[in-house]
Amino acid sequence: MPKIDRASRDRIVQTSLSLLRRGGLSASGLNNLVTEGAVPKGSIYYFFPGGKKQIVLEALQRNQELTAKALSIHLGGAGSLSERVGSLFRDLADRMSKGGFTSSCAIGAVALDIGSDDVELRQACGSILSGWIHLVASHMGELSPSKRQPSAQFLISLLEGAQVSARALRSSAPILNAAASFVTYLEGLTC
Amino acid sequence: MPKIDRASRDRIVQTSLSLLRRGGLSASGLNNLVTEGAVPKGSIYYFFPGGKKQIVLEALQRNQELTAKALSIHLGGAGSLSERVGSLFRDLADRMSKGGFTSSCAIGAVALDIGSDDVELRQACGSILSGWIHLVASHMGELSPSKRQPSAQFLISLLEGAQVSARALRSSAPILNAAASFVTYLEGLTC
Repeated sequence: MPKIDRASRDRIVQTSLSLLRRGGLSASGLNNLVTEGAVPKGSIYYFFPGGKKQIVLEALQRNQELTAKALSIHLGGAGSLSERVGSLFRDLADRMSKGGFTSSCAIGAVALDIGSDDVELRQACGSILSGWIHLVASHMGELSPSKRQPSAQFLISLLEGAQVSARALRSSAPILNAAASFVTYLEGLTC
Repeated sequence: MPKIDRASRDRIVQTSLSLLRRGGLSASGLNNLVTEGAVPKGSIYYFFPGGKKQIVLEALQRNQELTAKALSIHLGGAGSLSERVGSLFRDLADRMSKGGFTSSCAIGAVALDIGSDDVELRQACGSILSGWIHLVASHMGELSPSKRQPSAQFLISLLEGAQVSARALRSSAPILNAAASFVTYLEGLTC
């Protein structure tokens, strides 16, 4: 694919991701992509013959990669598990605060928007969450092996839920409180 | 208002809530209300001159009341706080499982769907979450006063996030795991 085409294709996926983060499935229609200045409508079908669903699936995949990177950077960094979790949540709080609490995880938004007939999108969300849980568990070497998967599952649910609260309350307090609560949970695991 | 009108009006709000629970803001347009057989389109504006936004605001309020009732029944019941929280999460897991994991809290879905210009909807979501946090804290008499509000905030974020995970993974496991994790958190508070 020529470089200029690759850039246009990439811009469509990036714009779709930005729209999904802000407003879920309803905000990420093809007309919104055009309005956001991604590209002319004709070229959307040139790059994505599968239309909206194909673009959304690629945007979710992009979200997956970016979040996996953040999880690895923070949870794979130096310090105790409590410190690493704190760093992850503080980073999320900073990013949401900078965006005025109008943007959050696209997987969360799509998971709550999908109808029972959207099998492919539902499976994509499920597979991405499972992958994150696996990744998070791999960074929990301090915990006994049987506690890693449930603790990772818990952390991912908490990350998603704290974003719901932060958006509704327009505040980073629920995210920072979630981090502190997770540390208390870790203390409970070993007491 | 005549009884028959009250019943029609009520059916519109109830249908809107059901649509919001399943698919967020995009699923709850007026055409969807008509398709779902709530009432003819003309009568929607007769009962709700403010259109979709007015209906959604009333549906969110209905969601608020139903959840507040569930919170009071379970958290205000007998047993230790751990047992009462377990009862709340088990009930949620049962209800989501019976619905095939296609329906969840409307406040969560709307909070992730609202644009920065939807001030009224955002404020409604924030005010409802704040109310729940206050209510949950009032049922945490066993905890020291300074721990009640943060623990309630944490519980509400966890409830919202566990629903995201349950829908994406089509499983009640994340909800039951969230309940067990909250119990570990409570142990951490006192160890």
